[in-house]
Amino acid sequence: MNKSIVRYVLGSILKIEGILLLLPAITGLIYMEREGLIYLVIGGLSSALGLLITAHRPKDMVFYLKEGCISTALSWLLLSFVGCIPFILTGEIPHFVNALFETISGFTTTGASILSSVETLSHASLLWRSFTHWIGGMGVLVFLLAIIPLSGGSNINLMRAESPGPSVGKLVPRMKETARNLYTIYFILTLLEFIFLVSGHMPVFDAICTSFGTAGTGGFGIHDSSIGGYSVYLQWVVTIFMILFGVNFNAYYFLLARQFKKAWELEEVKEYFGIILIAIAIITINILSLCENVFDAITKASFQVASIITTTGFSTTNFDTWPGLSKTLLVLLMFVGACAGSTGGGIKVSRIIIGFKSFVRESFYYIHPKSVRKIKVDGKPVDSGMIHSVNIYFMTFIWIFVISLIILSIDGKDLVTNFTAVAATINNIGPGLEQVGPIQNFNLFSDLSKCVLMFDMLAGRLELYPLLLLFHPLMWKDVIDHRRHRFSTWRRKRLMERQKKKHH
Amino acid sequence: MNKSIVRYVLGSILKIEGILLLLPAITGLIYMEREGLIYLVIGGLSSALGLLITAHRPKDMVFYLKEGCISTALSWLLLSFVGCIPFILTGEIPHFVNALFETISGFTTTGASILSSVETLSHASLLWRSFTHWIGGMGVLVFLLAIIPLSGGSNINLMRAESPGPSVGKLVPRMKETARNLYTIYFILTLLEFIFLVSGHMPVFDAICTSFGTAGTGGFGIHDSSIGGYSVYLQWVVTIFMILFGVNFNAYYFLLARQFKKAWELEEVKEYFGIILIAIAIITINILSLCENVFDAITKASFQVASIITTTGFSTTNFDTWPGLSKTLLVLLMFVGACAGSTGGGIKVSRIIIGFKSFVRESFYYIHPKSVRKIKVDGKPVDSGMIHSVNIYFMTFIWIFVISLIILSIDGKDLVTNFTAVAATINNIGPGLEQVGPIQNFNLFSDLSKCVLMFDMLAGRLELYPLLLLFHPLMWKDVIDHRRHRFSTWRRKRLMERQKKKHH
Repeated sequence: MNKSIVRYVLGSILKIEGILLLLPAITGLIYMEREGLIYLVIGGLSSALGLLITAHRPKDMVFYLKEGCISTALSWLLLSFVGCIPFILTGEIPHFVNALFETISGFTTTGASILSSVETLSHASLLWRSFTHWIGGMGVLVFLLAIIPLSGGSNINLMRAESPGPSVGKLVPRMKETARNLYTIYFILTLLEFIFLVSGHMPVFDAICTSFGTAGTGGFGIHDSSIGGYSVYLQWVVTIFMILFGVNFNAYYFLLARQFKKAWELEEVKEYFGIILIAIAIITINILSLCENVFDAITKASFQVASIITTTGFSTTNFDTWPGLSKTLLVLLMFVGACAGSTGGGIKVSRIIIGFKSFVRESFYYIHPKSVRKIKVDGKPVDSGMIHSVNIYFMTFIWIFVISLIILSIDGKDLVTNFTAVAATINNIGPGLEQVGPIQNFNLFSDLSKCVLMFDMLAGRLELYPLLLLFHPLMWKDVIDHRRHRFSTWRRKRLMERQKKKHH
Repeated sequence: MNKSIVRYVLGSILKIEGILLLLPAITGLIYMEREGLIYLVIGGLSSALGLLITAHRPKDMVFYLKEGCISTALSWLLLSFVGCIPFILTGEIPHFVNALFETISGFTTTGASILSSVETLSHASLLWRSFTHWIGGMGVLVFLLAIIPLSGGSNINLMRAESPGPSVGKLVPRMKETARNLYTIYFILTLLEFIFLVSGHMPVFDAICTSFGTAGTGGFGIHDSSIGGYSVYLQWVVTIFMILFGVNFNAYYFLLARQFKKAWELEEVKEYFGIILIAIAIITINILSLCENVFDAITKASFQVASIITTTGFSTTNFDTWPGLSKTLLVLLMFVGACAGSTGGGIKVSRIIIGFKSFVRESFYYIHPKSVRKIKVDGKPVDSGMIHSVNIYFMTFIWIFVISLIILSIDGKDLVTNFTAVAATINNIGPGLEQVGPIQNFNLFSDLSKCVLMFDMLAGRLELYPLLLLFHPLMWKDVIDHRRHRFSTWRRKRLMERQKKKHH
């Protein structure tokens, strides 16, 4: 394994995080908060350490999938460890596990909180919480791609490990350009939302935090009522932008490149909108009796459907009190998730489609065993490797889910709480039902359960494998072999030295 | 499609059911119950109709997988329709949907009941309920195989559609012999249980019904307390026999044939016992504080684990009051199910193993993409077709589950009730949690939901596909084409006749 490149990537992460921490620091200074200084100091230290580590550029700038996986997993862990220090030092979240939970929840764009009230937090910390969503939404390594000079082919291995969805890199052969394009689209959309929010008389600070939370499909609010306290206009702006950030960014890329036909051909995006419309329609009818009028029902249903399917997790109302049908649909939408290539989490619409199509094909195959019928997506046949990997993804998902559920159940909470807590974290949504419902928080779990949920959030964000592989012995085989080799050489030397001494 | 053979199979089913109905009829006569006469009349009519239908043997006795699927699905529906008539006519379950639910629940060895009390039923009906478990446990068509003369290769298509588990027919090349062997083992084991129960002073009638319920891994009790009212010895007899009936029958076949090495090599059986022991150990510790002493805890834990993993569904205690960890484990065991080739339901241990192994292999493959590593079961490599079919099974399972859950949620029951109701029916267990817990019943659902649950029970028993295909348009394509062809010929004739008339 090329360890020096992993070290170099981690050093760059520290440098970047140092710069990113300036934003909450400046916010703190504007609001004359003591907390601002803490962000400034941590940011400075992080950058300094990063500069130290990256002082020597490794000779070999190539890295393979293995290094890609390890870099990705370790980068996200490092980001979260450094990012949680200000919460501890400001005394706002003094318990380490809680602070780490909150930060991982931020970077993975989950939005599950251990805080019972956020309104007591400083502006600096509120901004940092929301900013972590924005940073995590598009991925930090994708950003690195745009700035670090890597050898050809290396970039795809980083991107493959960090990007959501079954396929990656269809866009353009040049990765660096792709990364830049993605960030440009991301930035413009966030800015647009900010403008729409401010023009609806939302305070500037609120608008910045809300835009960050929407763009990363995160869900941390800065009020205890989440988005519920804002006007209906603002709720609709958030609804629409949540949906927009859940769209496959390839669609925007094609639109910008004026390739309208290609954008229209993206089957996943059409099906994504289809699912949203159907879910809104059913839930609107189902909650009608609980609402003031039809428009109110549509507003609430649209907001919640958009919030859950894009895995954002904002709320305007306590949907835990909604009727069974609506709750069941919302729980199912938790698993569907947004489009691949968006900032959203979940299983992803494209995987659901491929899964559904292979199920339909199989029932056809069962009757006509000799027929050959290819699964098509976007009008093109899907190769069997992709179908296989989607099947394996489902398997892995189920296993991680089941094991998490068992560990959580040791705490003795009810089934719905445990089930939706795992679902809400592995799909990077935020709130679940019952004791982790939209007006509750995750502090009721033991530290062990919180660690499991943190793992689930990271596994969900990094699409299961990179993180799982971090614990795989094979991944570290050559490192261990290398150590073992060094140890045996050292022992042989010692033995020889002793024998020499004896001879003397 | 060879319709005459399907007709012939259905006719034979009617004949067999007529004979089977004699058992409750005799029971009724022994206890001097009016209900016995009803069973006698229905049985007689069923046999007479069957004789009428099978009077002409079809010339072509070959049938393919398609006919196999349709025969299987229709046979099970026909069995249930005829089998529910006595319940309606005796007035014990007057509502048709309820009577059908109870009968399907019996034949599919589910054991989910819509009755709040079973102690008011006549002996004839109690026996019939338990007897349906025994009939459904081994499958009716497997029995047909042993008696109907079919052309070579046809049998496997019937057996493939009805037998539980991913593989079938490994045993012996001669199907007829296999079917006979399976029934012999089934009969001997049932008899053994009966003897053990009677020697523990269980009344003969109770012992017959309990043996039937255990053998079929069904779960209908004849007391409202299920097995809870019997002595600890009797509870242990039932526990052990439930576990024995969940073992792959191939193991018994090998043991009888003195091929001990082959029996020992059955990986699934070893893992099945492993899962049982681990689950009992965890649950015993978890419920210790609720029980009188360690032995009491082990007795209750063993009984419930055996009852759930074998998908029998008997209960000795209301496990809905157990702590979260135990409940979560029981819900997970609901999905694991028994061994393939046993009378139990669920996903089956072998599928879980193949699923887990392909997940492990994939994480290996992810690091070493060029490696070729075959999944092995029983020491032999599993071909890719099998892995594929297991993956597709999981997909199909999930889709049926999700759609059922959505329809059930229209009734407005809570999530746990709906989730465990679907889980308990599709896995052919019986009781779930909350409002369908062990001391509750399924009568709270609407007729629509009951129909969905009936579908799930049949789909679970027949391993999803045969039943699903019954609704597939392709399955009926040639029947429809044939009708269309006849219609167009008839129209052409009419037109020609009219033209002739005009000419005249």
